[in-house]
Amino acid sequence: MATFINNQFLLHSATAENLYFTYAQNCPIVDYHCHIEAKDIAQDIIFKNITQLWLSGDHYKWRLMRSAGVDEQYITGDASDHDKFIAWAKVLEGAIGNPLYHWSNLELVRYFDITEPLTSANAEKVWEITSAKLASGELTARGLIKKSNVKLLCTTDDPIDDLRWHKVIADDALFETIVLPAFRPDRIVDIEKGGFSNYLQALGKSTGIDIKDWDDLKRALRDRIHYFETHGCRLADHGMEKFVFAETSDDEANAVLMQRISHPKQSLTKEEIAKYKTAIMIFFATEYKEHNWTMQLHFGCRRDNNESAYRSLGINTGFDAISGYADFVDPLANYMSILTMIDKLPGMILYSLNPNDNAMIDTLIGCFQDGSKPMKIQHGSAWWFNDNMSGIQNHLRSLAEQSYLPGFIGMLTDSRSFLSYTRHEYFRRILCNFLGDMVERGEFPKHMEILGKIVTDICYNNAMKMFADEEN
Amino acid sequence: MATFINNQFLLHSATAENLYFTYAQNCPIVDYHCHIEAKDIAQDIIFKNITQLWLSGDHYKWRLMRSAGVDEQYITGDASDHDKFIAWAKVLEGAIGNPLYHWSNLELVRYFDITEPLTSANAEKVWEITSAKLASGELTARGLIKKSNVKLLCTTDDPIDDLRWHKVIADDALFETIVLPAFRPDRIVDIEKGGFSNYLQALGKSTGIDIKDWDDLKRALRDRIHYFETHGCRLADHGMEKFVFAETSDDEANAVLMQRISHPKQSLTKEEIAKYKTAIMIFFATEYKEHNWTMQLHFGCRRDNNESAYRSLGINTGFDAISGYADFVDPLANYMSILTMIDKLPGMILYSLNPNDNAMIDTLIGCFQDGSKPMKIQHGSAWWFNDNMSGIQNHLRSLAEQSYLPGFIGMLTDSRSFLSYTRHEYFRRILCNFLGDMVERGEFPKHMEILGKIVTDICYNNAMKMFADEEN
Amino acid sequence: MATFINNQFLLHSATAENLYFTYAQNCPIVDYHCHIEAKDIAQDIIFKNITQLWLSGDHYKWRLMRSAGVDEQYITGDASDHDKFIAWAKVLEGAIGNPLYHWSNLELVRYFDITEPLTSANAEKVWEITSAKLASGELTARGLIKKSNVKLLCTTDDPIDDLRWHKVIADDALFETIVLPAFRPDRIVDIEKGGFSNYLQALGKSTGIDIKDWDDLKRALRDRIHYFETHGCRLADHGMEKFVFAETSDDEANAVLMQRISHPKQSLTKEEIAKYKTAIMIFFATEYKEHNWTMQLHFGCRRDNNESAYRSLGINTGFDAISGYADFVDPLANYMSILTMIDKLPGMILYSLNPNDNAMIDTLIGCFQDGSKPMKIQHGSAWWFNDNMSGIQNHLRSLAEQSYLPGFIGMLTDSRSFLSYTRHEYFRRILCNFLGDMVERGEFPKHMEILGKIVTDICYNNAMKMFADEEN
Repeated sequence: MATFINNQFLLHSATAENLYFTYAQNCPIVDYHCHIEAKDIAQDIIFKNITQLWLSGDHYKWRLMRSAGVDEQYITGDASDHDKFIAWAKVLEGAIGNPLYHWSNLELVRYFDITEPLTSANAEKVWEITSAKLASGELTARGLIKKSNVKLLCTTDDPIDDLRWHKVIADDALFETIVLPAFRPDRIVDIEKGGFSNYLQALGKSTGIDIKDWDDLKRALRDRIHYFETHGCRLADHGMEKFVFAETSDDEANAVLMQRISHPKQSLTKEEIAKYKTAIMIFFATEYKEHNWTMQLHFGCRRDNNESAYRSLGINTGFDAISGYADFVDPLANYMSILTMIDKLPGMILYSLNPNDNAMIDTLIGCFQDGSKPMKIQHGSAWWFNDNMSGIQNHLRSLAEQSYLPGFIGMLTDSRSFLSYTRHEYFRRILCNFLGDMVERGEFPKHMEILGKIVTDICYNNAMKMFADEEN
Repeated sequence: MATFINNQFLLHSATAENLYFTYAQNCPIVDYHCHIEAKDIAQDIIFKNITQLWLSGDHYKWRLMRSAGVDEQYITGDASDHDKFIAWAKVLEGAIGNPLYHWSNLELVRYFDITEPLTSANAEKVWEITSAKLASGELTARGLIKKSNVKLLCTTDDPIDDLRWHKVIADDALFETIVLPAFRPDRIVDIEKGGFSNYLQALGKSTGIDIKDWDDLKRALRDRIHYFETHGCRLADHGMEKFVFAETSDDEANAVLMQRISHPKQSLTKEEIAKYKTAIMIFFATEYKEHNWTMQLHFGCRRDNNESAYRSLGINTGFDAISGYADFVDPLANYMSILTMIDKLPGMILYSLNPNDNAMIDTLIGCFQDGSKPMKIQHGSAWWFNDNMSGIQNHLRSLAEQSYLPGFIGMLTDSRSFLSYTRHEYFRRILCNFLGDMVERGEFPKHMEILGKIVTDICYNNAMKMFADEEN
Repeated sequence: MATFINNQFLLHSATAENLYFTYAQNCPIVDYHCHIEAKDIAQDIIFKNITQLWLSGDHYKWRLMRSAGVDEQYITGDASDHDKFIAWAKVLEGAIGNPLYHWSNLELVRYFDITEPLTSANAEKVWEITSAKLASGELTARGLIKKSNVKLLCTTDDPIDDLRWHKVIADDALFETIVLPAFRPDRIVDIEKGGFSNYLQALGKSTGIDIKDWDDLKRALRDRIHYFETHGCRLADHGMEKFVFAETSDDEANAVLMQRISHPKQSLTKEEIAKYKTAIMIFFATEYKEHNWTMQLHFGCRRDNNESAYRSLGINTGFDAISGYADFVDPLANYMSILTMIDKLPGMILYSLNPNDNAMIDTLIGCFQDGSKPMKIQHGSAWWFNDNMSGIQNHLRSLAEQSYLPGFIGMLTDSRSFLSYTRHEYFRRILCNFLGDMVERGEFPKHMEILGKIVTDICYNNAMKMFADEEN
């Protein structure tokens, strides 16, 4: 079979190629949202074979294998790494239209110089080549980051994390990539969940504050926000299935919190939960605004849907789905509107897992731009199940039509894998083709200077401005 | 006017043509969901003119005629067959972009060798040609099925149907198409509807069981499932506007059922209805799983919306619509999750009438694939209002992106007409063009062996495996 | 830079060009829904510079400027007209994919003969040319309407408007464009809003009826409907965020109304509001049906979302968004169904702001076509946030697939600006390209007579038939 991923991959016009090769290709990567462990970078971990890189924790691939009828033994079971890889190759060869087909083969090209797409027929050969390449010691955690030209990456961290590995990385003058923590306090927002009380104690311990009421809690969180800031944090992240909002006050939030503390086994009402959550989300936004952090909101994911699989395999194993219809516009608009009234609306990035939400999000963010900077409120790049060709294209189109595309903060990997930086290449090719296509169809003039600036801003400058206060 | 539907119809690349002519075109048809009457096949009914074939029961066409301003007299009224046809021709000639335009003209080409698209201008000529052809006796019910190369078809049958016509067909060695019943027990699920009590009696009569409680009901239904199985049934179907779920138990279901039996005129609460429905749907799934049947769920249709038309014309006359937004993910996920916990999740095919649901369905089914076979849980082909070019393309794209396209069970007609087998050709051309387009754009390698297998699996093998335990 | 908007703009095939130049281009404009003031036409107002035309009231542009990071001073603030224009030019030059990019540059070409797209670099030159052209006195309100070949336009008017300016225009034999009022009684529907009681008094005053109960109200409204009819009105319009429906009666509506009158400060329950609204909407439909008016329903907009901006800038300043998910199908279907039962369903045009609603609307309207004329119930053209290339294309595709495209009533501007007639050109080019593309792809025969009739019907005849009882 001939080379599949060539130079022109996804670039279908001269303008698209020009934009990609002149402007996009050489932009360093700013990966401002991922799930890589700082420890793995600090320790510069090595990988014995491609199964460890590809199949040890990637629930995207696990899902596809199950869908293709592969027995669990070859997915999360006790089959050998080699046999799992062979099973994966057999699935991948027919996975036409699936982003994993592009991502996996792009990873083979970029990191292993393998230009043939993976099939059953060449799987053994690919196993050998990749194993040999990994044995050479070049493709460690840091080696992969360096090879990918990553300028800055943000991990995702619990507020009580001591960030010791971030410090190790920052102190190592030889490693040039900036690795910053991001603050993800879901466990202190989700007051209805089982582990809340224990988590409150852990937070208390990490701050030396005995958290008995709302003021204590705020003090403890401010302490951790300060701590994260001293480690370079510029970004927070909140995940929820459905965004909730209720009229609330500090007193009401305090009452709910104290009830939870004093009766940890007693259920809270929906209304109480909503009041507490609204109050704490207002608190967080206020803090982020004061620290000039950006606030990410991820919503629309229904997790752990298969109870049987959840009991045997746990979370993040490939059993999540897009949530059903629920109105997020009302609660989000109310929340953001209140923040405008107290002048505490921080920069935000909104992500929904439901691709139907694009136009609603893009018109909602337009109501909260205040002219202080381009796209203060962002619609985050096509996320998770939408991180594919049509998802990215639809996101770009909606953003361009309803908003101001040149201000877009751009791509991220959201990944647990050190090979996923090719998703930035994937995004950039789709972006350049999207723009080039409009030019070729006469929908925008061939003004390369303006177009080139749009490309570099989206691929690099906008993110650097937001997270590193510098440009180029 | 020149020939409109030529060999290349809908095939826009060499790869698309290659896939269609080499792999798709000659696959026999497996039409696993339709509304044809077994009696009509058994009796091999004849048609006097094309109006009887096209306009006697096709509410798709009736809707279009009303939309185009045709008086009801020429639709369901007492105008002559000839005049109805002329009225239809006048509407069709301008119906650009409507699937009926393609279906109708494709039917003229394939069954009547008429290559000019139907217009007002040639309507009289077409009337004559089709009448003559029908008079020749070749295009009877069986003649049309045979000419269409139908290997297997599944009708849609009430549990109390005696399936006598299926037996007649099965006993006729000269008719080679396999005609199987499918089990559609909506009337025993819809406990809130008026005819429930009468239906319960009819079910009792057909099984010789006096149904007084939940256990009786289950016994009677098991009896009918067994009866259907002895007639070759492998498939059940359930239709509902909105899928409901409630925590339930056999005792609670029994209580609701007994209340319904003892007080047939008294309304049940929403909660009671949901409890009964959940219990009976769990019962059905359990049975299907044990019999290795596949369970279809059709949802998202709001029926009989025009009360005035309903009173004058009845059901299935063209007054149905896509339901409004309602969360189907929560109840369906809960239902399927419970079935995993008792290891009774059967193979399923989910269909929604709302095209917005594609990504939600495709990610939901991914949570319930268990590796036992490819695509144990299917997203059924674009249904009813979505059975058009963009509907099919969007379904395929979503399935490819979120799931494993090669395992897709493929097309069905869902039709009441013996001419509708051309919808399989329509689907296959769109499928081959969809795949060919990806190859031409460099999104998948030109590996014809892999691609050809995908095409034949989707067009034939996957369905045969599911419904007939055999391949080719 | 070369000319950007040339003759072939958006026309990508010979058939598209043929359809546009032969059939679409010279159709007069019927702009049956806009927000232009009759007074401005009557007084034939002049514009000193392009900022007055473009930026004095256009909240679409204001939103884009805020999104691009422009300070409010240059948007609605006290910066000079010149400086606001320069700020706008800087934003527009990069607004790739935004409809404002096309609209603004199309307006420069058609009204000012400026063929270079606006950029920072040529902004001063464009300012001078447009200022000179405006000083020439050719581009007044009437001049722009005449230059745009507008045959008929409908304003949007409050029921108590005295329509004096419409009379002035009608009496002026030199002005050939027909300017009709449209009846927009939202303030009498929105019984829950603060100004209701005052409005009731104003309505009473304008009709000489002391409105004390439901019968008085109906009498007063009939009086105004009659008044509007004598001024040529053929069209009503209703806007609501969410369409509501409740079983109701005149007595119940009367009770709610009288309670509101006697206790103006007391809140009504949701149920009371829904009962009143349903009753008054049934009343309006009945009246419109009897007067052979068309009834427009606009829904799906969540307005004034940013409380801080609302307090400083007021309504219609760029802080509206698409509403969240809510089921409109149930209440609308129930409402229309009741109207069929009393034979009082008027011609309707339904518009939703949510692009996800296309298929639901298109299948819903199909349930209420009665064959009395083509597309008695219409799906209004892509509205507001959807008035862009993909919005228009998706609307056309859905309408073609689910309904009868040749009966479509076509485009409107919905605009407050006298330059917006180019949106009709924009729509027509997209329409002709949409149809041409189907022909080029072999999805419809190249039958130019049929295609040409479809184009002229959609661009002109269908609207004239609906609003002016005449064709060509």
